Amino acid sequence: MCAHQPLLGFRDFYPDDQRVLNYMFDVMRKTALSFGFEEYSSPILESIELLTAKSGDEIIGQLFNFVDKGGRHVALRPEMTPVIARMIGEKVNAMKKPIKWFNIAENFRYERPQKGRLRAFFQFNIDIFGESGYRADVEIILLTIMVMQNFGLRDFVVRLSDRCLWTLFLSAVGIEERNLTEILCVIDKIEREGREKTSAALNKICPHVDSLLDSIVQFTAIGSVEALKKFFEARGLLGFKGISERISELSCLIDTLAEVGVSDCIAIDFGIVRGLAYYTGFVFEFFDRDLASRALAGGGRYDSLTEKLGYDSIPAVGLAIGDVTLCDLLREKNLLPELKKNTDYFVIFDEISKNHALKLTNELRRSGFAVEYALHDVSFGKQLRMASQNGAKFALICGENEYSAAVVKVKNLLSGNEAVTEESKLGEFLTTFQ
Amino acid sequence: MCAHQPLLGFRDFYPDDQRVLNYMFDVMRKTALSFGFEEYSSPILESIELLTAKSGDEIIGQLFNFVDKGGRHVALRPEMTPVIARMIGEKVNAMKKPIKWFNIAENFRYERPQKGRLRAFFQFNIDIFGESGYRADVEIILLTIMVMQNFGLRDFVVRLSDRCLWTLFLSAVGIEERNLTEILCVIDKIEREGREKTSAALNKICPHVDSLLDSIVQFTAIGSVEALKKFFEARGLLGFKGISERISELSCLIDTLAEVGVSDCIAIDFGIVRGLAYYTGFVFEFFDRDLASRALAGGGRYDSLTEKLGYDSIPAVGLAIGDVTLCDLLREKNLLPELKKNTDYFVIFDEISKNHALKLTNELRRSGFAVEYALHDVSFGKQLRMASQNGAKFALICGENEYSAAVVKVKNLLSGNEAVTEESKLGEFLTTFQ
Repeated sequence: MCAHQPLLGFRDFYPDDQRVLNYMFDVMRKTALSFGFEEYSSPILESIELLTAKSGDEIIGQLFNFVDKGGRHVALRPEMTPVIARMIGEKVNAMKKPIKWFNIAENFRYERPQKGRLRAFFQFNIDIFGESGYRADVEIILLTIMVMQNFGLRDFVVRLSDRCLWTLFLSAVGIEERNLTEILCVIDKIEREGREKTSAALNKICPHVDSLLDSIVQFTAIGSVEALKKFFEARGLLGFKGISERISELSCLIDTLAEVGVSDCIAIDFGIVRGLAYYTGFVFEFFDRDLASRALAGGGRYDSLTEKLGYDSIPAVGLAIGDVTLCDLLREKNLLPELKKNTDYFVIFDEISKNHALKLTNELRRSGFAVEYALHDVSFGKQLRMASQNGAKFALICGENEYSAAVVKVKNLLSGNEAVTEESKLGEFLTTFQ
Repeated sequence: MCAHQPLLGFRDFYPDDQRVLNYMFDVMRKTALSFGFEEYSSPILESIELLTAKSGDEIIGQLFNFVDKGGRHVALRPEMTPVIARMIGEKVNAMKKPIKWFNIAENFRYERPQKGRLRAFFQFNIDIFGESGYRADVEIILLTIMVMQNFGLRDFVVRLSDRCLWTLFLSAVGIEERNLTEILCVIDKIEREGREKTSAALNKICPHVDSLLDSIVQFTAIGSVEALKKFFEARGLLGFKGISERISELSCLIDTLAEVGVSDCIAIDFGIVRGLAYYTGFVFEFFDRDLASRALAGGGRYDSLTEKLGYDSIPAVGLAIGDVTLCDLLREKNLLPELKKNTDYFVIFDEISKNHALKLTNELRRSGFAVEYALHDVSFGKQLRMASQNGAKFALICGENEYSAAVVKVKNLLSGNEAVTEESKLGEFLTTFQ
């Protein structure tokens, strides 16, 4: 018989790893709560219909999918967005708006594991449903900035773009609506694929668009509201339906973020398109300036998803932070705090005082202290060593002599300080003893 | 297009439900930490070889199992025990003993959903590896008792039995070792199946055992160490290899629990056998006295599991508490605290002061307060109503007038108390204002 392993691309979290995970989840959870977001969750298995409704069947190649014993075609969810859209869609009429929700969920994708990308990973998801205005987008961006700051990160940037202006631009230059999503998918990959491949891909969708490649490349390079205005002005498109109004909306978003004092980390960047078809407005990605290879977080507005799933139309904006890239970065920048097992007291006893010591232990635990003791009989010296190995701050020595005198000897394991106290006054004594 | 549902036997956790889940997990986690247990976790997918190594192929009927795109036969784990045994087995030599671990994990079983039993459910797992003595069993029992007490439960009982004495008894009356596990499985179901069916099932395994049915039924009725001694004495079996020693061990366990002061909730009950084949020593189940239909928790010693999985032999004892039955009970007994969204401050503003108010909000959030505001322009009155609806304790009014005077009006939304403070002194002011 041979030993067993976790599956390829899956991680075991031994206590040292789990402490890191818990630290990260704590920061995320506390920050989300400070923004008034409420936590929700759902099991990892969903019907394939839900998961493909949004992205089409091509996503199946990346799923852990199967037919269950009842004949249901199901899959481990690859992301939370369709799940939250389902949950909101089911009960939207009974809920007060805006709905501000967060969760920390494990997701699964059948992909080739590589640095920063695993088959099982966690995402911190934040979403606002029921608000169409830019202030919901601001809230999502500010919350994400504060999460990054609460981790001690300083040199990150929010690259901000707008799917709405992208589609207005493409419409204004004559691209038909039915081709928009596909074209944006190609543009999303310009940086990676290079000009030649992009040109070929665009040609396949519609020959007209290829002649616009120069304009498209220029559009991806836009980095400010002024440059945006100039771009449209130079092409006589500022008057095209909705373009000016949308530029104003972007302006308001940027101004608000500046007023709050976070403009240092905001960068307009129309090179950000976000591949997923469901984004309908502002989109944003967070990058560390020193480690720009993979986004720390990404999101945007998706106003039409609930409708696509068969529910009422509900405006929505959201973002997800993955645990893998973020944790790599925190480790690399030495931003993970020292996380150790916490033991307040280690109780030391002998054969005679054994059961009495255990009673004492139980009482201290009931008061909320972390207390340990040896689970089999060993010498006093060995017990003292175990106390230190467990990182205990104090040893409480309750041997035969102490037991019969109804006292406890308390020893500070760092300083070596010792003192004896009546057992009945132990609790009080421990609050002051150093 | 039609609406979507969670899968049969699966639950969505909307914020109200999630708060209950988080409360339960918090109590479990804090209690485990006070006993010096460390948290671990692992993804829900495991290879089928691991999951069947312990229980045989018959468990496959209860699994969500499938072949992944790489040809691996995998399944959602139905419980944590094989997973922790794998994790410990892989690294046992690098770890200090005893290993005291806990986790809160979602498990999956393809069963007919019914009251107290779902297809996706959580379990709080506690395990100690590397200690063969009864004090590890005591630690597991005491921790579980304290979890129950920390939930406010009082009328529960730990039904305690011993697989070791069961097998010694059956061996002493001539049952062959190879039939022991199967016979114990049948005995485990006596209460449910009745005498006639049990007799038939036993006869199938070996005809000899049926003649022992009276003895077996008497053994299941044993409720004290004295009764146990009498039972063996009456049959001249006290001298059979190991029986006396094992009764002493049980006696020590019971005495220790009595010394700690929890004997009120301990009941020896040899009717508890635990169906799972891997238990090798003391086994225990927790029941509420008012709602005895389904165990709140169950566990026991399983010293041979790591060896069965191909690793070194490591003594182990563990227990699991399921979330569904426990939550039903807490709800029924009104032991769930009132859990509401917590909003400290709701910031109220107008068109002029909008961005300034948002800056103020962000600063308060940075200090850790839960702060909200309206995400689109509405009247002062509507904003005040929103503040109350969100359960905010205070409204911070920062309209045009306050903004230009660099002050903030603070209103206690319960008492109606109002006061004005300089904005620069707001933080300090809020620490004292009631």
